[in-house]
Amino acid sequence: MDLFAKICIDKNSLEHMYIQLFKSIKNMIEQGVLKANDKLPPIRQLADLLGVNNVTIVKAYDLLEEEGYVYKKIGSGTFVKPSGNYRYLNEQHKYPVDEDFRQMDRGQIQIRNNMISFASATPTPDLFPVEDFKNLLIEVLDRDKGSAFGYQESQGYYPLRESLVSYLSAYGIFTHAENVQIISGAQQGIDVISKAFVQFGDSVIVESPTYTGAIATFKSRGAKIIDVPIFEDGMDMADLEGKILTHRPKLIYAMPNFQNPTGYSYSQQKKQKLLELASRYNVLIVEDDYLSELSFHGYESATLKSLDIQDMIIYVKSFSKIFMPGLRLGFLVIPQKLHHQILAAKHASDISTSGLNQRAFDLYLRKGIWKQHIHYMKNIYEERFEIMVHCLEKYMAPLGVSYTLPKGGLNFWLCLPEGYSSNDLYHECERNNILILPGSIFFTSQGESRYFRLSIAAVYPHEIDFGMKKLSEIMEKFLKAKATSNINAYFPIL
Amino acid sequence: MDLFAKICIDKNSLEHMYIQLFKSIKNMIEQGVLKANDKLPPIRQLADLLGVNNVTIVKAYDLLEEEGYVYKKIGSGTFVKPSGNYRYLNEQHKYPVDEDFRQMDRGQIQIRNNMISFASATPTPDLFPVEDFKNLLIEVLDRDKGSAFGYQESQGYYPLRESLVSYLSAYGIFTHAENVQIISGAQQGIDVISKAFVQFGDSVIVESPTYTGAIATFKSRGAKIIDVPIFEDGMDMADLEGKILTHRPKLIYAMPNFQNPTGYSYSQQKKQKLLELASRYNVLIVEDDYLSELSFHGYESATLKSLDIQDMIIYVKSFSKIFMPGLRLGFLVIPQKLHHQILAAKHASDISTSGLNQRAFDLYLRKGIWKQHIHYMKNIYEERFEIMVHCLEKYMAPLGVSYTLPKGGLNFWLCLPEGYSSNDLYHECERNNILILPGSIFFTSQGESRYFRLSIAAVYPHEIDFGMKKLSEIMEKFLKAKATSNINAYFPIL
Repeated sequence: MDLFAKICIDKNSLEHMYIQLFKSIKNMIEQGVLKANDKLPPIRQLADLLGVNNVTIVKAYDLLEEEGYVYKKIGSGTFVKPSGNYRYLNEQHKYPVDEDFRQMDRGQIQIRNNMISFASATPTPDLFPVEDFKNLLIEVLDRDKGSAFGYQESQGYYPLRESLVSYLSAYGIFTHAENVQIISGAQQGIDVISKAFVQFGDSVIVESPTYTGAIATFKSRGAKIIDVPIFEDGMDMADLEGKILTHRPKLIYAMPNFQNPTGYSYSQQKKQKLLELASRYNVLIVEDDYLSELSFHGYESATLKSLDIQDMIIYVKSFSKIFMPGLRLGFLVIPQKLHHQILAAKHASDISTSGLNQRAFDLYLRKGIWKQHIHYMKNIYEERFEIMVHCLEKYMAPLGVSYTLPKGGLNFWLCLPEGYSSNDLYHECERNNILILPGSIFFTSQGESRYFRLSIAAVYPHEIDFGMKKLSEIMEKFLKAKATSNINAYFPIL
Repeated sequence: MDLFAKICIDKNSLEHMYIQLFKSIKNMIEQGVLKANDKLPPIRQLADLLGVNNVTIVKAYDLLEEEGYVYKKIGSGTFVKPSGNYRYLNEQHKYPVDEDFRQMDRGQIQIRNNMISFASATPTPDLFPVEDFKNLLIEVLDRDKGSAFGYQESQGYYPLRESLVSYLSAYGIFTHAENVQIISGAQQGIDVISKAFVQFGDSVIVESPTYTGAIATFKSRGAKIIDVPIFEDGMDMADLEGKILTHRPKLIYAMPNFQNPTGYSYSQQKKQKLLELASRYNVLIVEDDYLSELSFHGYESATLKSLDIQDMIIYVKSFSKIFMPGLRLGFLVIPQKLHHQILAAKHASDISTSGLNQRAFDLYLRKGIWKQHIHYMKNIYEERFEIMVHCLEKYMAPLGVSYTLPKGGLNFWLCLPEGYSSNDLYHECERNNILILPGSIFFTSQGESRYFRLSIAAVYPHEIDFGMKKLSEIMEKFLKAKATSNINAYFPIL
């Protein structure tokens, strides 16, 4: 109790006493003064010691539990959480492994020359239209001079917003420049939306598994993440409805086409059902459209936004997978009534997105080069896609590895037989110069997973067969060896 | 009570009941179901009605108060706050006025052709080195091709971080590329730092008045903002120490040189004292250096970071005022031990800053063009500065308007005689085609203020005398008219 006697509660402070106490204990945990499984003092005892009411202690302990610092055992008291789920410190601890994986997803890992990366979903730099874009940059600078380098309006360069409106109409989305918000990439889009609508303690529903960057952002807002399993034809709608009722989420984050990481697409029926639920329960849906252009075999990849008669969807559009991620450019289409909140959040994030890039991209759209580029990328990716489909059948199916063929996109989601962890497989592959992305990082529960993701964005056609053959050889050995890892958590549904 | 009978509390939910209740009532307030000054039900009554414990109601009401939705009157109960200080909704309500002002600060307002803007602190586009930069962009694209458009590392392009290290040494800051984090402008720097270190309920100390963008970001994190008045030689150190002890802030946000909006600079003594307090109480200091290059008359504008022997300062460097805001480029120098938290927060914000701009700016530094540019800008601004100093003496002093001459920078902070509000003056000026920035927006308390800010960034030398003469004529009339506005809040110290 000596430790706790030093806690200083200022009764004259404007800050609630329980918040003061919460912070003191939080600091003691973060600084290692209190260690894993240390027991906190009983409520009455600490209340006496500090000369405060029991309720103050109860509230502080509740908040500590809420924030993941402690756990409670009924009948025996409150204890410091061992692998502390407390947000930032934890982020730091797990950094080396997880960040590695996340960075791989963005092609940010220096890979050895002889490596084949099925991990990165980012196109190789040779696919970027560098010369075209260089000429447009020059054209913009000669035309606009210094104005191209001033602060752009926070909502975005108006002519670009107009061009995007016309681009969207080709995809069945009819909107106005007033409803378009330019962002510095989809990740910022998710961040800005969270700032505007997600407060501490709010719930957010996500597909499980889902994009890791979205989870990080929602967590950073202090949100409670509610998982809804995703199936080949979309989220489990009954489960979703139940969780909407129970948790009253601030928003639902979904990728209805070629979901990341699974590659699954929602059926037309489930898309409609999702809209219906949003309308019935007045929940905001954030549709992350990072790839819907890349549909193959004539699959109709309608976006939710194009079906959104009631104007309830926030549509997030990224160009990073199909254009140039380094531009840091994307946009939102926002329901009319939500403008001001989004604009204020964007302003507090980085004021505005680089005007030069916006202006050059505007010309890119206006001159029709964008359409040609999409066509070009689609052909390139389709070739790789077909090769991969063929390789899966040839190399993976015989090993008992299961998968569902996506209808487009860049990602394939594979599942090891029971008893194996893809974390272990990752290490085995990495040693053999093949990079894959283990499924565990896409689940909020941070366990192990039988799933892994293969992407065709950063591999050349000739590498795919070679790489998949090698992968199958590695896996054959891997699967023969007894499953040695301790798999604590399975995801039985998926 | 009928309204409240409809509240549905799910006892089986993983979400605490008080959080569920908090959200229900919050929604009723936001949706206008509960109106200003409506009384919430007495605790016991609501507890009976919902079949929950009294403590649940107490905790929900406390959280509502904490979040600015309700106020309590001792002995009479809990009531809905009238001018709701609740965060987002409020942001929306006050949007038209405040956002206008904030945007003016960034030169984002379309001003009429015949207007003179002393409101914007952003340089006019003719001062941007467009041709030089265009050539560097071309050079980079010819050199790096597609790599310039790939995802840049989240921490920033390594060669640029090296260049910045060498640039910083000229300002007495000795660091390593590992301690430099590239950001998309200073606003994002503040946002990233907040994400990494400020949680819901934490306190943050700011100078009062201060930069509005910082306040918006801290508020968006759910932080409690603690004001410490700033004087001509820096914050009141006794007050600061007291508030550190009382509020145990997560960080202190300060602009030690040519503070925005006051133009005040900390004395050497107070800079040292600030460092000492940070060290004694283990508080993080965020130094926002947006202008220290612009010191005139040989004033020694040492940054805190250059005095930071104990590596406790996060240094935020913006180039928007002296270079090109549209690049959205700045950087942080971070204490060694805080890397991972900052990097994770940057990653969750926008993954990385545009690589093309980073690469071109790197060349700009390496080729020495940057040094020439600073020199050029300093000369231009110094000319305007001197004209303004002269005009203040000539036009403002005789009117009883008080001010302190800054030692550099772009901003002048003026104070009207007692009884007058600069909000009113703003409107008078705007009608007469002169833009000023009323002081009220720089105070967290949102009241009226006698202060206003004049900036020389966006006015040409010949406009300054003309504009100030006109301003003095407007003010003469304004001061003669009886003070008609209802000034509720003064800031007596400042």
